[in-house]
Amino acid sequence: MVIDPQAFAPLAPPVRLLMGPGPSLVHPRVSQALSAPTVGHLDPAFLAIMDELQVLLRAAFRTQNALTFAVSGTGSAGMEACLVNALEPGDRVVIAQHGVFGGRMAEIAARLGCDVVKVEAEFGDAIDPERVRRAIAGKRTRLVGVVHAETSTGVRQAVPDIASAAHEVDALCLMDCVTSLGGIPVEVDGWQVDLAFSGTQKCLSCPPGLSPVTFSARAVDALRARRSKPSSWYFDAGMLLQYWGSDRVYHHTAPINMLYALREALLVLFEEGLERVIARHMREHRALVAGIEAMGLAIAVAPENRLPQLNPVRVPQGVDETAVRRALLERHDIEIGAGLGSFKGKVWRVGLMGHTARREHVTTFLGAFEEVLGALGAPIERGRALAAAEAIWSREP
Amino acid sequence: MVIDPQAFAPLAPPVRLLMGPGPSLVHPRVSQALSAPTVGHLDPAFLAIMDELQVLLRAAFRTQNALTFAVSGTGSAGMEACLVNALEPGDRVVIAQHGVFGGRMAEIAARLGCDVVKVEAEFGDAIDPERVRRAIAGKRTRLVGVVHAETSTGVRQAVPDIASAAHEVDALCLMDCVTSLGGIPVEVDGWQVDLAFSGTQKCLSCPPGLSPVTFSARAVDALRARRSKPSSWYFDAGMLLQYWGSDRVYHHTAPINMLYALREALLVLFEEGLERVIARHMREHRALVAGIEAMGLAIAVAPENRLPQLNPVRVPQGVDETAVRRALLERHDIEIGAGLGSFKGKVWRVGLMGHTARREHVTTFLGAFEEVLGALGAPIERGRALAAAEAIWSREP
Repeated sequence: MVIDPQAFAPLAPPVRLLMGPGPSLVHPRVSQALSAPTVGHLDPAFLAIMDELQVLLRAAFRTQNALTFAVSGTGSAGMEACLVNALEPGDRVVIAQHGVFGGRMAEIAARLGCDVVKVEAEFGDAIDPERVRRAIAGKRTRLVGVVHAETSTGVRQAVPDIASAAHEVDALCLMDCVTSLGGIPVEVDGWQVDLAFSGTQKCLSCPPGLSPVTFSARAVDALRARRSKPSSWYFDAGMLLQYWGSDRVYHHTAPINMLYALREALLVLFEEGLERVIARHMREHRALVAGIEAMGLAIAVAPENRLPQLNPVRVPQGVDETAVRRALLERHDIEIGAGLGSFKGKVWRVGLMGHTARREHVTTFLGAFEEVLGALGAPIERGRALAAAEAIWSREP
Repeated sequence: MVIDPQAFAPLAPPVRLLMGPGPSLVHPRVSQALSAPTVGHLDPAFLAIMDELQVLLRAAFRTQNALTFAVSGTGSAGMEACLVNALEPGDRVVIAQHGVFGGRMAEIAARLGCDVVKVEAEFGDAIDPERVRRAIAGKRTRLVGVVHAETSTGVRQAVPDIASAAHEVDALCLMDCVTSLGGIPVEVDGWQVDLAFSGTQKCLSCPPGLSPVTFSARAVDALRARRSKPSSWYFDAGMLLQYWGSDRVYHHTAPINMLYALREALLVLFEEGLERVIARHMREHRALVAGIEAMGLAIAVAPENRLPQLNPVRVPQGVDETAVRRALLERHDIEIGAGLGSFKGKVWRVGLMGHTARREHVTTFLGAFEEVLGALGAPIERGRALAAAEAIWSREP
């Protein structure tokens, strides 16, 4: 147990171009905010920052919900926080599952003692909202869960019809927007979503560690009508409301510096403008896909269901998918993601999230990807990718 | 919902001397580590950092426990993670409660459906281990929880006798060492503690956001023998073990930058040396208490039970305790803590944790405290505090 500090090298993580499923590149202003002086969690200066953060988060979620704040944990903590507050043992829950994260929702609900019904689609497909409606119709259901942007597959799922189906049976609608917030339109109030959670390390260009969440007035009413306390104390929204609300009752020590970073990330977002940020994600996605298709490779999701920020590229037959990722990392300092679940070994997940979704990064990636695939003998068209991407940029400056 | 970014001032939190119950002052090297480049949570460079972090955490906890890692949440998340993994509904749990944090343990265990028995002491007192032994003896008990350093009162609780009493009935012993780790001796293996959790924002001089935890082999065996899955997915130690262990199975996206900071904080600790750090806390505590007593004020805990890192100072009759804290903050940029529970309005909590526990900060505090108390008309002896502290420093250089 004796430590020789000399045996530990000074901290010097490699500078990677983060083009996987998250974390994405952190904006330099966000990095700087992280190391601002720590103050106390009840310091008036910090309480003012919390108030500003709530205003910024409401604008990002496009909601007026009073109970909008950041859970002190990563995106999965936000998922658990929503479910543990909304559900009680025995509740019927319908989960629209088309990837790993829908599966995670179902798993958490099952641990909470709920009766979980899944409406499933294959990896790479979206779910017909009509199927969800049929699973709910006429049945006393507490909550319907849906993943807006499935990080494991790159599929965008339509939410509004599912939310309205949920409301027809007086169920709450829970939306996972971990990968969508700040990358594609998210309309919590417009779609009448009752609970939503996100993450900081995707399109918000902030390190992982917090989960923005929002609860509608209906969700808060449901919370107040619970027969039992939530099984989690740490995620108890009623208690967190007392800290984030005007009462300022101490609950747990907030992760001060991460909250500085999130505030800065949201300011960076709104300085560029939410609509412009979303347009940038779409433009860089088009350029990336044009380049990838020009190499003769394919995207594993139908065009109408694609997420600009997460691009699943089919691994060509005979190519060692791990070797490609390793070469990108070791020779080019570029991280991309592996496939998960039934996509394992079959796709690479190329992320274009937040600060990563910039022309220079698409250019770097296309050049490096072509080099690596060529060196590993993949059957690709060479020398065409960048021109194809440039054709997009010249049309959509 | 329209945001005018110009309406938000640039982030510029005040530079406070943090002398409350935590967060404490962050070491400059830790601040710097926080903003190191973010890498992916499965990047080989990050996995190496996780391995190093586990080695450092084991040395800090003084344990060989394989399952030693940082929970992605604050200290209370670590508390919940330990309880949710160790307990199942219906289990009998004995909690030694002598302040707010023992109460929190009991509350979490009750939410998990356990039969909770409390052995209580007044705020400011420690608990006779014999009373805990009597509450356990001959009764089938799953877990005995004890708070080693009660942040709400400044009381140090003896742990070894409670741990051995727990083992006599084959119960697990859970220790809260949020405020003790890195400030006073903590001996997880030596005391035969089965589960322990801490926090980063106390004596480790790191911002809040992570909770170091450790599980003994007995605790891991108990985990494997569970009849049901833990009600929490986010805190499921079996799954976290697969990520932190050699399997590296993705669970949730680790809070990368906070983990950089914790690694740096532990290196700073071991460069100074754990024993020297503990001696420094004790020396600065003696100097602080000498100064406070020279003013004619009293510490609210008996000398044998005092924590050097958390000093509850009795509010003299007729003094407005809030006004004193406000004046310290507004005029001197010094944060101290208010009393909690039955100590509310009756004590100030003066922290000397980690990087805060330095001679220059004790000097600053004594001068400012005397000025503020004098200005608010408190009945104190003036002009003696610093000389009393200096007498300690000259004896214990």
